[in-house]
Amino acid sequence: MRMVDIIEKKRDGHELTKAEINFFIEGYTKEEIPEYQVSALAMAIYFQGMTEAERVFLTEAIVQSGDQIDLTAIHGMKVDKHSTGGVGDTTTLVLAPLVAAVGVPVAKMSGRGLGHTGGTIDKLEAVPGFHVEITNDEFVKLVNENKLAVIGQSMDLTPADKKLYGLRDVTATVNSIPLIASSIMSKKIASGADAIVLDVKTGNGAFMKSLDESIELAKAMVSIGNGVGRKTMAVISDMSQPLGLAVGNALEVKEAIDTLQGKGPQDLQQLCLTLGSHMVVLAKKADTVHEARKMLLDVIENGQALETFKLFLASQGGDASVVDDPTKLPTATYKIEVKAKNSGYVKEIIADQIGVAAMLLGAGRATKDSVIDLAVGLMLNKKVGDFVHAGESLVTIHSNSEDVEDVAKRILGAYSIVDEEVKAPVLIYQEILS
Amino acid sequence: MRMVDIIEKKRDGHELTKAEINFFIEGYTKEEIPEYQVSALAMAIYFQGMTEAERVFLTEAIVQSGDQIDLTAIHGMKVDKHSTGGVGDTTTLVLAPLVAAVGVPVAKMSGRGLGHTGGTIDKLEAVPGFHVEITNDEFVKLVNENKLAVIGQSMDLTPADKKLYGLRDVTATVNSIPLIASSIMSKKIASGADAIVLDVKTGNGAFMKSLDESIELAKAMVSIGNGVGRKTMAVISDMSQPLGLAVGNALEVKEAIDTLQGKGPQDLQQLCLTLGSHMVVLAKKADTVHEARKMLLDVIENGQALETFKLFLASQGGDASVVDDPTKLPTATYKIEVKAKNSGYVKEIIADQIGVAAMLLGAGRATKDSVIDLAVGLMLNKKVGDFVHAGESLVTIHSNSEDVEDVAKRILGAYSIVDEEVKAPVLIYQEILS
Repeated sequence: MRMVDIIEKKRDGHELTKAEINFFIEGYTKEEIPEYQVSALAMAIYFQGMTEAERVFLTEAIVQSGDQIDLTAIHGMKVDKHSTGGVGDTTTLVLAPLVAAVGVPVAKMSGRGLGHTGGTIDKLEAVPGFHVEITNDEFVKLVNENKLAVIGQSMDLTPADKKLYGLRDVTATVNSIPLIASSIMSKKIASGADAIVLDVKTGNGAFMKSLDESIELAKAMVSIGNGVGRKTMAVISDMSQPLGLAVGNALEVKEAIDTLQGKGPQDLQQLCLTLGSHMVVLAKKADTVHEARKMLLDVIENGQALETFKLFLASQGGDASVVDDPTKLPTATYKIEVKAKNSGYVKEIIADQIGVAAMLLGAGRATKDSVIDLAVGLMLNKKVGDFVHAGESLVTIHSNSEDVEDVAKRILGAYSIVDEEVKAPVLIYQEILS
Repeated sequence: MRMVDIIEKKRDGHELTKAEINFFIEGYTKEEIPEYQVSALAMAIYFQGMTEAERVFLTEAIVQSGDQIDLTAIHGMKVDKHSTGGVGDTTTLVLAPLVAAVGVPVAKMSGRGLGHTGGTIDKLEAVPGFHVEITNDEFVKLVNENKLAVIGQSMDLTPADKKLYGLRDVTATVNSIPLIASSIMSKKIASGADAIVLDVKTGNGAFMKSLDESIELAKAMVSIGNGVGRKTMAVISDMSQPLGLAVGNALEVKEAIDTLQGKGPQDLQQLCLTLGSHMVVLAKKADTVHEARKMLLDVIENGQALETFKLFLASQGGDASVVDDPTKLPTATYKIEVKAKNSGYVKEIIADQIGVAAMLLGAGRATKDSVIDLAVGLMLNKKVGDFVHAGESLVTIHSNSEDVEDVAKRILGAYSIVDEEVKAPVLIYQEILS
């Protein structure tokens, strides 16, 4: 088999076989196939696409390029949730204890990564004492006992994806649905979940800006997941403005605590209930999403969701009393209001710009070596559809520096305020079950 | 400027600027731009094509990547001829003395190259004593005096093309009209000709198998040539069977001598007259191709064409008496007839297979280090449209080995013979002037 023939076949719009895709991914992982052939193939895929079968083969080949996590020691159906990423996305912090409280095992392996705010582990580390340095055995034991644990991820998952992503980034071949879908799904599948709920964001703050593209990506991922034998569904949710009100690490922990008590922002709460009820159904703890939703509302109301969160924090060394007294979380020195220049309705909040503002404060990692300030961040006081009076606060900046001129400027730039009444955006556009 | 942005721009179907194309070719030549970005761009060009302006910029950038030959010391308009390659193509050996005889300066710099038979220099070396090891000053002097000289090419012309071609070959991006056209034209332009006549072959023995593709390539090259200020035209000629009758080095020299006397095969003679008359017009030695053709027929008839060939051979150490006594050329030990199995009309002669047969005999170079046997080759006794009786010879093999079973088999495989009458193919399909 020769790589040049594989490139030519794809260039001419033909379907690659499982053997050809394996040859490509194995050869690339072992550095037997040079990058200049891989980038040419990626560009051919960009133009010619991939069939459903090819996407499944590609995903499987990427999974097999590295370690795979074995979660069989954990009882029950393990359901993972994945978000394509947005700004102020507190869903994981809420969902993990929420579904665990109804008996769905949540075995979360997490990295730190780069971004506007920290990853799940960074956020949880805002709780004094909390840590993820536990052994694999402890991890399994904790999930089986408490239905929830989080561990740092140190295995070499999907090395072919890391190489491929790096190459695509410098060869203008990132934006290909089959390549994006198999990249995401290979990581989820290597992580060992039995079933997967995908939260595909759409809008100005999402990777996919248009609804059509978001649906296409969601369908591609659902098809791959089911194609490799992992029950998979997707929710298309709005990211035309940040989700919830908090953007920052400790601020999002506080927001998660509120939401677990039914006192969180409406959009965050609704999205968590939707994603959560699908997770509960996929874990076979309920027959219908309607039934599952009711179970989730029950554990919010009766305090079991919050109790599960406390138990989880304490079991990994965290001070669970923060849940009852969130002032024990890291707190920024300054609270500075960003005020509206004129009155009107909020028409748009460019989520990316809000994310960058949070990063400027120190809430996220720009490079691998950046140190995150867990206390800082933003609280949105106005969201799309809200009326604001001139001089009223749009956003409260939580900062450890008094000089927030750049941050404030960026926030003002992110908001557009108009005279005409504006409707709040749709939160959930579509659910894709197959 | 970043290469990834240039790739993305082309990927999205936009026109690259001169500055962007220069950045790419300069960076690639200096190895500042990695091959994986170049192959991704080549694949994007494969799909999106290039505008006329882009093709001109690309060709100019490739020309500027290396040395350029300066022919200004040679008097008159220097007209170069280029063929896209075929089997048994003796045109250069005929055309060079033919147009020189009417006063068109022919300053030929030639390499050796790989192929079914040798290059022009190899063929000429079949003339005892002939050599191309002359100084640049001698070369210029000879062309000015005799209107014809040939020198080995040792400068570093179009290094970007060499790199790019090597990369395209292993990334399935060879077959792109703009890339093929700028590759060919950059070499011609760097070689210093004032005007260029292109012989674009079409048919089973040509690089371009279909007439449409051949016309597209011809138009692309003519447009580039004129776009960089070199008067350029193209002739689309048939390569659905070998041109002329001889395939081999000494055999083609003998065929050229015949043709310079008006006794050569009809197709070779007609093509040389057509290409030659355009060369004469471009060199401003005649106002019309009609007039030019008459001048060429005159020098064939009055012996001046043959005299020019003799003078040229002698001036570079060759034994010019071979022209009057071609038995002095290298001669193979065995002449073996390949006989038709059944009677009928020759419908097709797969030129590629005839070429491979000649190569198997030792007439061409398979690798850089192969040694050519100048004496061996094939003489076609039947061409498309001819009637052949069972047992009559199709081809005479000139070989230095008695064992020619493989060669004969391949020749028989190249011929198809049918019952119905067959017309000889069209020789010249089209002339493309702009």
